[in-house]
This record gives sequence, C-alpha cells and structure tokens, in this order.
Amino acid sequence: MASTVPPDPVHSNHYVDYVIRYHFGATDSSQATEQLDLLLRKLFDVGLQTEVRQGDESSLLVFVRASRKKSLRRALYQSRIRDWLCGVRNDEPESESSAEPQSESERLRIIYHMITVPKEAGGAGITPKHGEWKNVDAIFPLHDEDMNRQCIKDWSRKTFLSPEDLDQIRNTFGESVGFYFAFLQSYFRFLLFPALFGFSCWLLLGSFSIIYTIVNCLWCIIFIEYWKRQEDDYSCRWQTKGVSAVRTKRREFQPEREVHDESTDEMRGVFPATKRMYRQLLVVPFAMLSAVALGLIIATCFAIEIFISEIYNGPLKTYLVFIPTILLSALIPTMSTVLASIATKLNDYENYETQPAYDVALTQKIFVINFITSYLPIFLTAFVYVPFASLIVPYLDVFHLTVRPFVSKKDATSLRTEFSIDPDRLRKQVIYFTVTAQVVNFAMETIVPMLKQRLFREYKDYNRRKNGRLESENGSETKKEALFDDHPDETKFLTRVRNEADMEDYDVTEDLREMCIQFGYLALFSPVWPLVPVSFLINNWVELRGDFFKICMECKRPWPQRADTIGPWLESLGFLSWVGSITSAALLYMFSNGHEGPNGEPTAIRGWALLLTIFFSEHIYLMVRYAVRAAMTKLEPPNVKKERTERYMMRKRYLESTVAGRSSDDEGDDDADHSMEVSEITRDSLEEDARDWSAHDVDPAERFWMRQKGWKESSHVGANIIKVAEPKAQTKKEQ
Amino acid sequence: MASTVPPDPVHSNHYVDYVIRYHFGATDSSQATEQLDLLLRKLFDVGLQTEVRQGDESSLLVFVRASRKKSLRRALYQSRIRDWLCGVRNDEPESESSAEPQSESERLRIIYHMITVPKEAGGAGITPKHGEWKNVDAIFPLHDEDMNRQCIKDWSRKTFLSPEDLDQIRNTFGESVGFYFAFLQSYFRFLLFPALFGFSCWLLLGSFSIIYTIVNCLWCIIFIEYWKRQEDDYSCRWQTKGVSAVRTKRREFQPEREVHDESTDEMRGVFPATKRMYRQLLVVPFAMLSAVALGLIIATCFAIEIFISEIYNGPLKTYLVFIPTILLSALIPTMSTVLASIATKLNDYENYETQPAYDVALTQKIFVINFITSYLPIFLTAFVYVPFASLIVPYLDVFHLTVRPFVSKKDATSLRTEFSIDPDRLRKQVIYFTVTAQVVNFAMETIVPMLKQRLFREYKDYNRRKNGRLESENGSETKKEALFDDHPDETKFLTRVRNEADMEDYDVTEDLREMCIQFGYLALFSPVWPLVPVSFLINNWVELRGDFFKICMECKRPWPQRADTIGPWLESLGFLSWVGSITSAALLYMFSNGHEGPNGEPTAIRGWALLLTIFFSEHIYLMVRYAVRAAMTKLEPPNVKKERTERYMMRKRYLESTVAGRSSDDEGDDDADHSMEVSEITRDSLEEDARDWSAHDVDPAERFWMRQKGWKESSHVGANIIKVAEPKAQTKKEQ
Repeated sequence: MASTVPPDPVHSNHYVDYVIRYHFGATDSSQATEQLDLLLRKLFDVGLQTEVRQGDESSLLVFVRASRKKSLRRALYQSRIRDWLCGVRNDEPESESSAEPQSESERLRIIYHMITVPKEAGGAGITPKHGEWKNVDAIFPLHDEDMNRQCIKDWSRKTFLSPEDLDQIRNTFGESVGFYFAFLQSYFRFLLFPALFGFSCWLLLGSFSIIYTIVNCLWCIIFIEYWKRQEDDYSCRWQTKGVSAVRTKRREFQPEREVHDESTDEMRGVFPATKRMYRQLLVVPFAMLSAVALGLIIATCFAIEIFISEIYNGPLKTYLVFIPTILLSALIPTMSTVLASIATKLNDYENYETQPAYDVALTQKIFVINFITSYLPIFLTAFVYVPFASLIVPYLDVFHLTVRPFVSKKDATSLRTEFSIDPDRLRKQVIYFTVTAQVVNFAMETIVPMLKQRLFREYKDYNRRKNGRLESENGSETKKEALFDDHPDETKFLTRVRNEADMEDYDVTEDLREMCIQFGYLALFSPVWPLVPVSFLINNWVELRGDFFKICMECKRPWPQRADTIGPWLESLGFLSWVGSITSAALLYMFSNGHEGPNGEPTAIRGWALLLTIFFSEHIYLMVRYAVRAAMTKLEPPNVKKERTERYMMRKRYLESTVAGRSSDDEGDDDADHSMEVSEITRDSLEEDARDWSAHDVDPAERFWMRQKGWKESSHVGANIIKVAEPKAQTKKEQ
Repeated sequence: MASTVPPDPVHSNHYVDYVIRYHFGATDSSQATEQLDLLLRKLFDVGLQTEVRQGDESSLLVFVRASRKKSLRRALYQSRIRDWLCGVRNDEPESESSAEPQSESERLRIIYHMITVPKEAGGAGITPKHGEWKNVDAIFPLHDEDMNRQCIKDWSRKTFLSPEDLDQIRNTFGESVGFYFAFLQSYFRFLLFPALFGFSCWLLLGSFSIIYTIVNCLWCIIFIEYWKRQEDDYSCRWQTKGVSAVRTKRREFQPEREVHDESTDEMRGVFPATKRMYRQLLVVPFAMLSAVALGLIIATCFAIEIFISEIYNGPLKTYLVFIPTILLSALIPTMSTVLASIATKLNDYENYETQPAYDVALTQKIFVINFITSYLPIFLTAFVYVPFASLIVPYLDVFHLTVRPFVSKKDATSLRTEFSIDPDRLRKQVIYFTVTAQVVNFAMETIVPMLKQRLFREYKDYNRRKNGRLESENGSETKKEALFDDHPDETKFLTRVRNEADMEDYDVTEDLREMCIQFGYLALFSPVWPLVPVSFLINNWVELRGDFFKICMECKRPWPQRADTIGPWLESLGFLSWVGSITSAALLYMFSNGHEGPNGEPTAIRGWALLLTIFFSEHIYLMVRYAVRAAMTKLEPPNVKKERTERYMMRKRYLESTVAGRSSDDEGDDDADHSMEVSEITRDSLEEDARDWSAHDVDPAERFWMRQKGWKESSHVGANIIKVAEPKAQTKKEQ
C-alpha cells in the first residue's frame, strides 16, 4: 500500500487542504446531524469540496479541499484587493482569472478565510468552538510529513539556517511562525560575538568586568535595532509589510451599544475608549498583586533556604535543604497559572475590539508575571541579600524558634554569630537560571509532551481494544486497523489524521516569551558570569531544532497567520535591555573588587556613588541607543530597498504617462502669441491702449496683463529697462 | 484711481500669482538680457503669462500668472497623482479636465512648483540664487492686504482663534505656517490651566511647591501628547497626512559617484550613508565646543557679576554692576552667530540628499546652541552657585586682586567674610528670563525690524531723489511717483510690490524655536516661580498676533509649503519635558524648606537623597508618559476619524464590487451536483467504486475525494456515523 503513495507532498495528504473535526458527543444525534448538514452545505456554497470520515468515538472528520478553481481565485483576488487597498501590496493585483496562490501558505490562508470569515465578507462563517458552531472542534491543515522530515534532517547538520530555509518555514507555517524562526536565527547568529567575547573575558578578566558590561549593553542595543531592520527586511521579502493594518475583528467583542454610523451607513457596535481605559487601570493593582503574591513566595522560600543552608546546623539538614526548592517548584507554577488566568479574565473584561489589540494587552500582562518569576530571585540575592543580609538575617530567628526543640541552646547561638554572606551565591544562582533551568525547560517543552502524547495514545488504543473485545466477546479479537469502518486504502492516512487531530494547538507567543525571558538574563545579569552567552548559544542551536520538531510532531499544523513583526515582544526586549543598563551598572559597582566588608558584605558601598553610577549608565545607554537608532535607520536592508524601488518604478510609470500626455497636447495649443511681432512700446502707445480698453470696458486689473503681448514683448521691455539702467548705474559708480 | 480698484483680493493684486525679482546689476547688460529672455521663454513654455516692470535701479520685476487653465490643471493633476501614489491622498484624483485648486495656497504651491521644478518633472526649473539662475533674486507671491488687515483686526478682539481662522492662515500661507499658528494656539489654550493653577499655588503655597511641580510635569506630558494628536487632526483636516514622504531633493547635494540603478534604469548620484555617519560624528565635538565656548563666557560673566554685586564694595560699584550684562549681551549673540555658522557648515558638509533631512539636522544643531545659551545661566545658579558658592567664591579673589589698588586691605578682607549666598537670586533670574527677556525678544523681533525697514525705505527714497535731482538738475523736481516710468494706473500697485520685494524672507523655524525655548523654561524651571505660565500666557496672546503682523508687514509672503508636523521641534519639546522631570525634582529637593544652612547654602543636601529623588522622578515621569501616550493613541481626533471612514468607505466600495461580481457569476455555476440523488453507501458499494476506478487508472489520492459525490452524500455518511456511534456511547455511559 505504502509503495503506491507517491512522494509528492500534496498527494501523501490526499490533496486535503483542511480537516474539520466535528464533535457530536455533547449534543443529541438529530441536532448533531442537522448541524453537520448545515456545515457541509455552507462549505459547499463557498466552493469547497467535502468528504466525511469517522474521527474517534464521538467525532467526525470533515475533509475539505478547494476543488473549484474559480471560487479559490475569487477569494484570492478579493484578499489581494483588500491588501492593496490597505497598502500591504504596492501594485494593483492582476485580474481575477489569472490569480494563483504564490505559496502553500497563501493557499491555506485563503481557504481558512473562506471557511471562517462571515457570510457578508464572502466566507462560510464557521467559527470553531464559538456560538452556533460550538460542535466544530478544530480546523487544521495536515502536516507535510516528507518536508518536515527533510527539514529536521537538513538542519541537524547546519549551523545557520539559510534565508531559503526560513522561506520554507514561512511557506509551510505562515509568516507568524516564520518570524519566530527568523528572530531565533538572528538572535543565535548575534550571540556568537558575545559568546566569544564573554568566554575571553571569563578567561582573562573574570566576573564583573567593566569592559564586558559595556560591550554587553552595546550589543543589546545593536541587536534590538538590528532586529527591527531585519523585521522590515523580512516583511518586505514576505510581502506582509503593513499587514497589521488589516485588523480582524474579535468575535468575543461585546459592544456597549449599537450606533448608526452616518458616514458609512452601517450599524456598528461601539465600546467607549475611555471606559476601556478605566478598565485598563486595573492592570496597576494586578501588577501589584502579582508582585506581592509571587514576591512573598519567592522571598519566603529564599529566607528558608538561607536559614537552612547557612544558619541552621541541626538534624535532618541534608533533607531540609530541599524544602525551599520543593516549595518553589510547587508554588510558583501554581501561582503563575492563577495569575495568568486572572490576567486573561482582566483582558476579556477590557473588551478589545480587534484580535491584535487583545493579544498585545495579554502579552503585556503575561510579561509582568514572567518578569517577576524569572528575575526576582536574582534581584533579591543581588540587591537585598548581599547588601542587607547582616541586617535581615537576625530576623530569620522566626524560623529558628521552630527548630529550637531539636538543637541545644548553645549550638543555636553559636551558629548565629558564625553567619557570613556567601559571595558566590549570586553566581551560582545566575548559572542555575541560565544553564540548568534552560535545559529543564527544554525537556519540559519538547520531550515530556511527546511522552505524554504517546502514553495517551496507548491508553486510548487500550480502551478501544477493551471496548471492542466487550462487544465481540466471543469472536476473534478485532484488529486495531479495523476499529473504524475505514476503507483499507485509507487506513494509514486516517490513522495519521486522527493522531494529528488529537495534538495540541501550537502557540507561537509561548516560544517568543521564552526567548524574550532568556534575552533578559543576558541583558540584566550576564556581567555576573560572562559565560551566559556561551550557554545560550548552545541552548539556542538546540532550541531552534527542538521547536521545529515540536511544531511538526507534537502540535497540529497551525493555519498560516500573517505578521510583519514579532509584536509586543519587541517592546519587551527593549525594556529589558534598558533595565539591563541599570542593573549592570549597579552590579558592577557593588561587586567589582574593593567593596567587600568583613562578612563578605560590601560595606564600602556608598549610596550616592551607586546612584550616580546608575544615573550615568542609564543616560549614556539612552544616548547611545538614540545614536544607534539614528544610524540604523540610515542603513536600508536589501528587501526594503527592493520594495522601495518597485514603488518608485510604479510611481514613475504613472507620472510619465501624464507628462507624456502633456507634450502631445502642447502641439495643438491655442496660445500662439509667441510668434507675434514685437512693436515698440512707449508711454504713448501704452496710453493709447488704455484708451482703447476703457472704451471696451475691461476689468482694470486685467489691463495690467494686456500691456505686453506675449513673452517676447516682455523680454523686449525688460531689455529696455536694463539698457536704461546700465548707464545710470555706471554714472553712480563713477561718482 | 483708488476707487476703481475693486475690493476683491485677487483684483487688488491685479491677478498676479508670483513676482520674480530679476537682478541685473551684477552682470553686464547683454548677458542679463539674454538670461531674461531665457527666463521668460521658460515660463511661457510651462504655460505661464508674464509682464515685466521696473524694480529698482538694478532689478526687474517679472509678474507671473497662470493664465492658461489647461497647464495649471495638468500641473495640479500631476501633483495630485503624485500625492495619491505616495499615500497622501486616499482617492484617485478626478480627471485632469475637472481639476481645480481647492484653495489659494494649493494654487500658489502648484504654480511655484511649475516655476521651480526641473524640466524632467514638468516645470520651468528656475532655481533662485542658484546655478545659472543666480540673477533670479526671489520668487514670491503678493500679500493679500485686505485679508491680512481684516485678520489682524478680528484677532485683536478674540481670545482664541477658531479652527476657521487657522484654515484661513493655511489657505493664505500654506500648511507649514498654518502648523506654527495651530501649535501656538494649542499651546496658548493649554497654558490657561497651569496659569490659573500656578497663580493659586503662588498665592497659597509659594515657590517650590511639590503639588505644582507634579502638576506641571504632568501637564507637559499631556500637552505634548495632545499636540501629537492635534497634529494628526490638522494634517487630516488639511489633507497633508504623510506629506513628509514626498521628499524633495536638495539642489546642493553632491553625490560621491554616479551609479547606474539597474532596477530603475537611471543614473543616480549616491553618497554612502556610512560616510555621512562619520561626518555626523563631528556633532559631538561641535556640541562640546559650543558648551565650552558659551559656557566659558556665561560662567565668566556670572563670576564677575557675583563678585561685583556680592563681594566687591569698592568705588564705581554702581557702574561696574553693568559690566557683566554688557559683556553678556555683546558676547553671547556674537558667539551664537559664529557657532550657528559653524553648524551650517557642518550641516552642508554632512551632504544630505533631501531638504527635510537637511532641515532636521540643522534644527538639532541650532537647538544645542539655544539650549546652552538659554538655560545654562539658570543651571549655573541653581546647581553650582547655590550649593557650591562657599567653596568657589574664595577663588574669585583673582578678580579681587585687580581692584585691590582701589580698596584698603582691611575693607577687602572684611568684605570677603561677609559674603553669603543670595537665595533670591535664582528666582530673580527665572523672572528675568521668563518676563523681561520675552518682552525684549518680542520688541527685537517685531518692532525693531519695522523701524529698520521704514528707515531703510526713507534712505532709499532720499537717495533716489538726490540722484533724480542730479540728473534733472536744472529742471523741475521729479515727483516721487514718476521716479520709474510707471503707468499712472499702476503706480500705487508697483510701489507696494517694490516694497514687498525689499522685505525679509519669513522663516517659520525661527518662530518655532522661540516657542520651544519658551516651553523649556516652563518645563525646567517653573517650580522656582509658579507665575511663569501666567507670564507666558500673556506673552503668547501678543506673540501670536505679533507674529502674524510680522509675516504680513515685515516679510515677503512665503510660498505655501506643505507640512504634516512641526518637525524636529516636537522631539525637542519631548526632550525638554524629560529633562524637566530631572531638574524639577532636583530643584524641589534642594530648595524646598528645611535645607538651608547658615550662609543660605543648603548644607543638608545629601547626595544619595538628591539622586534618589531624581531617579524616582525621572522613572515615574517615563512611566506616566508611557501611560498617557497609550491612552492618547486610543482617542481619535475627529478629522482622523473622518479620514479613516473615508478610506474605509472606499475600500468597502471596491470590495462590494468584487463580491457582487461573484453572486451574479454563481448562478451559472457548473457544479450542479447538490441536486444529485443520495444512494446508500455501504462497504460493498465503496469497494465496487474502487474496482471501477482501478480500471480507469485514477490517481489513488484523487480516489479519496470520489467516495462521496456532493455534500449531500457527505452529510448522509456523517449522519450514519453519528447514528452508529450514539448507542455505543450510551452503552459506554451506562457501563
């Protein structure tokens, strides 16, 4: 069977464009049938061909393809017209009959729009999991397995992805995913320099080197500005520049009232911006709540840890040491999840009109939570534990009381005086977050879900087999393949589709968040341990391949979304780099040599000197950023240039056509007065003319223009004036 | 004669669109005649009518008007097409034959382009004072005197200008000037609040009130962000949005080499951006030079002043007190002029390709000079004199030595110990800069030039009369009117034109600079004396009228330039407001009560506390700015909304036409399979079909799509699956 399947990717997918999983378990059968009828009818109306197959016990798979060329072309043409009107495309699209999708992702995007867009805009209006279509569970295209396998194999032998590889990703998964990989690739390439430089600094200068810190800050600025250029470049290359102007309405948007828009003559739901702003103010208490909730957990665990590892010396110490770690890993994710759900609710409450606005607002809230969980522990060590430990540690006696029964009084008191600050603690922590945590993260993200998926599949199969056995109790054991009433030609294909339908949805912002937080460690704390970029360089090589593997193997293929930027994460990167200029300076001042006191605490730290260092560092950072930004805007990436040239050429063609029109017109022009004879103009002749005009009752202002007929007369008059003036000027000079 | 001139503004200008002053004094007469010939010929070719009259002894006035409707229309149409292609206009311009200028300023702008734009772009290519046209002294339209008089009269009785008044300015002088007045008007209106609030604070709280400072900072943020909105609003109202995208080439641009641009197939002069960047680095030494040169002058004069007024008590004190003021007013303008000329040279050296880029760079350099001259004296008083005077004053003995001969030794020493810091000095200085200097400035700017002009005119007339008398020595005295060989109908008009030709060029950036610097005092130092906004409020009421008077009476009418912003000054305003958040906090901390030492110097100032205050103030400022900015972008000004609606409507019309096309097409569609009979589908029938296909050799992937014919069959299959699954699920549930 397998040998008859041709290697052509589309064929191996049986020309299927989309699969719609229709869930009928929740509603009763007649209603479900009716609804399915409507679904298929709507898809047909829009010009799509359908085939129905069994999904699992409670779902159907509706296979969809755009078989009618005409409908597809029309949808394509319409989408292009819309792009052109919004300024995404430069040139007016060619006629409808010759419209062809330029890439697989464009084809899939158009078909997705045909399925989901409302009837008024020319689509079928299927909204998965929403409203009347709540039975429609998912709409997804099928993975192109051969391509995916090929890519994974190719990339594992490469250091850098070529632009063509990125184009390939974009063609398969759309621009949104393409931008993530482009970013990861640029970031990886840019990390090479700080990795090398950091390694040398680590060898030669050790930690807290001023040179490393300056270079690192500068690198952050240049990287971010460079990436902005790259974004422009890719958005021109992928023809998505300005695509964020085409905003899709959010289905969940609840207008406060319907308003009749007089200028467009439409009913339009509105929600006042001021009201939304008031709601947005809730972000402030939310951020404070997050900070307090997470801060308390982190600070408590931190205090316990210090107490146990550095003060406590009683029984069970070897076991007790793990308490704070266990507490942290149990409480932080729980609290994060709670906070994230609050953030989502807040975001829903803010009631955004468009999907991009909603996403941006949510991303910002998620960033706040992540900022606290990721960086607060190190902040505590650097800016609370090290300078103030000798003041704070005595208060940890609160814990001491609880263990008093176990230790003799003498021991306890002697232990307290022995306490001294561990100067290596900061470094250890940074290493933990930049190496161990990254590896753990990767495993959690890529390997664990795969195992989970496999187990789930086994479990499902086991269940089915058990049920099957129950039914055909006294027959032969049902074969796995024949579980559903599939045609033998399709068994393999359908099994694959069923597996894909069970996979998770892929969310690109999750991966972007991870990279952004990673960048934060580099910007904020890398002077503590200059090997940070080395670790990230290695990690990101694996990360890129791992993420691709994840999309291909563990997630449903995402429908190709367009994008012209990595969105609000760019702003977050800028923010982190800015904060980095502050923390780097502070760390450098506090921990570089010569500030250590007797207990390891830096006694010689002077408040004003620290603040002055920060002040200068921050403002120099801002100035340099301004300069780099100004310089970067002057350098035009190749694709932007190409795009500009195209625009220019189009303009030129238009203008030339109008100028050309003019010169051909001119030949038959009616103003033929330049061939007129020049007559002597004197005071007398002028007065004569004036008398003539008054007889004809000419507008006195118009007379002004009748004294010289044609430019030759004007020229003549001018020459006369010059001639007369010349001797005068000369006499004057002579005088 | 005067009674026959109708009140219609155009008539009183004899329908003249532009006056070109042609200077022939420098070249010999034959060459001048030839050149004049060429000028008139070119103007004619482009479709303009000309009349020549005598200017003064060494110049001609060429009167120009667009008499041929067709040429004007074509130029207008071309300009609109260009706008449309650059995205300035939303809708494709109507056909050439129906194109009419919408306002006087559009008409004048088009004609100016016809005169100045190179031949390739369809103009006459006259470049005043440049290249072959160095004899062409000026190209200017004539003032519309009735309108001007009417406006001055109207406005003197109004508090606020109405939007219609601003439209009037824009229609007369173009958008660039319109934006200046719109800004001034917004600024004036916005000043009302801090003026009132400042006055109450001054009464109730005195200087250095924390409430006033916070409100003032907040006001600055809101004003700037509000103005950005206003800019958008006006640029939509005046249809110039995105006009900065239409960049005019700079004539002075010197390309490094000519490059053949393959994509556009044109020769194009290029100058590498990196090279320009290296040249731009010269700004750094320039800024340092300016700071040092001006700083030295200011600091020296300052030291002399302190010495004389506060230490020195010898003879001639009453006269010596004026020395520093005289020195300052002599040296600072000289030095500023020198620096400004250096800045211009630097800017020329940077060799910008477009005029806007050149202007922006120059503006930035001028801003640096102005920042130093305007604010350094107050900075010195606040941050050097007050905190460090007791350390520095002893070194002023250097001057002491010079006056030692005049005073007895005993006197001198006794005087030195008596020195104490004058805490009121800062306030006095701020009052000087925000009241006295503003008034002096206004006088220098408006009244002095008028007197100068009048005197110059008198002198010219006197000279002429003298010459005339010399020539007609033994005849009757020549009448003033008959000095030139004018037709009596035109004498009055020509006299006026000659006067206008002698006027200065108007430069709007000069006025914007003045306002920007004024805003700086408010942002930076107003906590010192809360009446600052009151003074500015009064000043700006006069300023607005004075500036309008200046344009009308003392300057040539500017040709209407388009703009969609006040340009780089906006950035300067933002910068000043930012610095204001730092200085305000510092001033507040240093001078609010409780910090004064015995000699009036604030001894209790703690470095870390000061820096911490600044740190928090600045970052709170930045956060608030971020929030205000985010909030402001949500509020859409009315004209922006209108513009968006128009764009939306256009898009809708286009899209509707394509959707409409579809439904009419659909009726004759070829896919008629939905009327097909539904047959029972069983495993057997499927296999039968499969056998059929293998006989016909169908693509196996295609077979997948042939099992269900039409959506009704699909629906039927689906219903079957649901029916079969239902009991199973129920059995499962029951189990």
